Amino acid sequence: MNANQIPHIVIIGAGFAGLEVARGLAKSRVRITLIDKNNHHLFQPLLYQVAIAGLLPSQIAQPVRTIFRKQKNLTFQMGEVSAINFDEKYVKLNGSVIAYDYLVLAVGGRTNFFGFDTIEKSGFQLKDLDTAVKTRNHLLSMFEQASHEADTEKRKAMLTFVIVGGGPTGVETAGALAELITHVMKKDYPRLNLNDARVVLLEAGANLISSYPDELRQATVKLLKKKNVDIRLNSKLDSYNGVQVKLADGTQIETQTVIWTAGVKATEIVDELSIDKASGGRIRIEPTLQLPQHPETFVIGDAAFLLDEKGQPLPMISTVAIQQGVFTAKSIINLMTGKPLGHFHYKDPGLLATIGRNAAVARIFGISFSGFIAWVIWVFLHIYRIIGFRNRIIVLFNWAWDYVFYDNQVRLITKE
Amino acid sequence: MNANQIPHIVIIGAGFAGLEVARGLAKSRVRITLIDKNNHHLFQPLLYQVAIAGLLPSQIAQPVRTIFRKQKNLTFQMGEVSAINFDEKYVKLNGSVIAYDYLVLAVGGRTNFFGFDTIEKSGFQLKDLDTAVKTRNHLLSMFEQASHEADTEKRKAMLTFVIVGGGPTGVETAGALAELITHVMKKDYPRLNLNDARVVLLEAGANLISSYPDELRQATVKLLKKKNVDIRLNSKLDSYNGVQVKLADGTQIETQTVIWTAGVKATEIVDELSIDKASGGRIRIEPTLQLPQHPETFVIGDAAFLLDEKGQPLPMISTVAIQQGVFTAKSIINLMTGKPLGHFHYKDPGLLATIGRNAAVARIFGISFSGFIAWVIWVFLHIYRIIGFRNRIIVLFNWAWDYVFYDNQVRLITKE
Repeated sequence: MNANQIPHIVIIGAGFAGLEVARGLAKSRVRITLIDKNNHHLFQPLLYQVAIAGLLPSQIAQPVRTIFRKQKNLTFQMGEVSAINFDEKYVKLNGSVIAYDYLVLAVGGRTNFFGFDTIEKSGFQLKDLDTAVKTRNHLLSMFEQASHEADTEKRKAMLTFVIVGGGPTGVETAGALAELITHVMKKDYPRLNLNDARVVLLEAGANLISSYPDELRQATVKLLKKKNVDIRLNSKLDSYNGVQVKLADGTQIETQTVIWTAGVKATEIVDELSIDKASGGRIRIEPTLQLPQHPETFVIGDAAFLLDEKGQPLPMISTVAIQQGVFTAKSIINLMTGKPLGHFHYKDPGLLATIGRNAAVARIFGISFSGFIAWVIWVFLHIYRIIGFRNRIIVLFNWAWDYVFYDNQVRLITKE
Repeated sequence: MNANQIPHIVIIGAGFAGLEVARGLAKSRVRITLIDKNNHHLFQPLLYQVAIAGLLPSQIAQPVRTIFRKQKNLTFQMGEVSAINFDEKYVKLNGSVIAYDYLVLAVGGRTNFFGFDTIEKSGFQLKDLDTAVKTRNHLLSMFEQASHEADTEKRKAMLTFVIVGGGPTGVETAGALAELITHVMKKDYPRLNLNDARVVLLEAGANLISSYPDELRQATVKLLKKKNVDIRLNSKLDSYNGVQVKLADGTQIETQTVIWTAGVKATEIVDELSIDKASGGRIRIEPTLQLPQHPETFVIGDAAFLLDEKGQPLPMISTVAIQQGVFTAKSIINLMTGKPLGHFHYKDPGLLATIGRNAAVARIFGISFSGFIAWVIWVFLHIYRIIGFRNRIIVLFNWAWDYVFYDNQVRLITKE
């Protein structure tokens, strides 16, 4: 058997979904080419921690080459795929053509601003390391500027932080930012009146974390209020000009900081594909996760659109991506050996959101937790899931330190 | 006694020199305003480690506000001083006028390209966190690009890294980069022939680390050669166009990476002052470290020019800056209490340069060391000097890990 007869599997995207496919094929007689536009895998659920100066970029990211050092059937290529030809089975990357036998599209999503161009321009988002670091630098700069601003109104505007979107990311960011102000910035800026500082959480709907059970939603509101987060439900954004937010009901909020966490849509490469798409530009797939008419192509993670048993679209979250990745690796093995494919069923492992330093809400095995116990569960689950043993130790050490000393480790402003 | 009668001391620069002045006045009845354009103090001697992906920015930098949290007589202000009026005793910062009773100019230096505009444009430097991270991203990108470059000559050019300047920074960078290639990149890029990779160290003079004793210079050459660093002595740069270096003797080196470590000069604010300056734009000062004609103004660190007992200018290194800072704090106390000022004398604490993972050269108490023992001394001295207990533990942990596993912790490419 020569090298040409070994099936070539191309995986686009080194997020949770793509990583699991590659791992699941580690012992198979295949050639894998894993492609990503970054050289690192990102532990996206903790990205907001980088934005609020709680964790370092390197603690939630790891080079893909390091992850797969020992997997000899895999080659990593960094770059952006410029075209995909499903009929002739090749992708274009860095000027080369790469032919495949099986293709896994796990390209993830990007921030959906729903047409709010001014927010895309003047606001902040949490999509990758660069946008998170940019957010951190801006947040810290606001405190510096406020520290030498004599005008009270201007100072208050500098210390007003608006977070748009009451989903898990918005809730976690609001809680963590409120704690940064109360516990850390108060010490760093002893002469600044931080009672002027405000964290405003805007949610267009009637509830925060609307997909969670009611008791957890209530616990979340209670925990955020305790941390002085100003929660505005049924508050639709109307406009933002870089210094003032206007809501649909006419309310105005003076602020230089709007962090948008309110939506995800498909990435650029998916936009260009002439295939059937659902809301947010996500690709409609078969229950086997295959692309219709192209059984050798799988689409998984945030880029894929599939309904669950209740007719609801599967959420764009890491646990779905991971399970689909594991499932797809098995499906490819089945295809290669002529076995039939099963249907993908998502098993909900529970819900979890953290609200600052020592509080969280969780639902695991049908039981709801809130407060400190939920937070301890959250810490251990997240540390366990962070890739890399060294990172796990350092993150645990940092969190233990923060917990004991009420400190946040990195408040470096790295770009002006 | 009211607040106006408490002397106001303005310190510009939170480098080694400025920090020591502020610390030395912690128990004095004074008001201190410490100003820096960054919000952090930088442990500059380890900046090259950030460039070669050995340490994280946050491990060698710490927010100034955190350092001085407990020093109640100090206020920190982030910003760039736009003007200094020595006669009327005020500085301009962020649009405000700040009057002082005593001024300490500790503004440090910046890279001196000696008129090589093309290097300033296309080359890399190690001056602050941003330039070091930019260098790291570029170095790592070169390996990525080389990994999918089919043309052998182009690939070799991508893997050729030229370091200009055979001083301690150039030597340390060359040694560490050579080790990154041999021990870490070989594992990350198993399909890339890293025998094509080259580290070239250019020195215009006849010796590396020319200010060190001869036996250490020889040991350095030996250690670098063992790591396959291509040392070119008496090699003057003629030009660089972004893809090719030309030397004065006509030699051409194809490379996309030139790291310039060959010079330091005064910062922008010093350029604009109409006071007496020496080579590199450094300010000529009295043996008391005072500015001539302005006894209430002290100039210290890289910005100051002073001859030692042998008539040699004091070097622009951290140990000089630290000793001058300590001395200046005492001098200000003497001035306030009407005591006479002494002359500054630099006490050479020894020399130390590291050459990669387990080798260094050192001269302490008149004894020369090289190899592993010198490296152990270097590790302990540097860790001890890094500010912040938490950072010390993490840096030690990372180095121990790297030493055991031959790994470098962060190889994230964060900007394209």
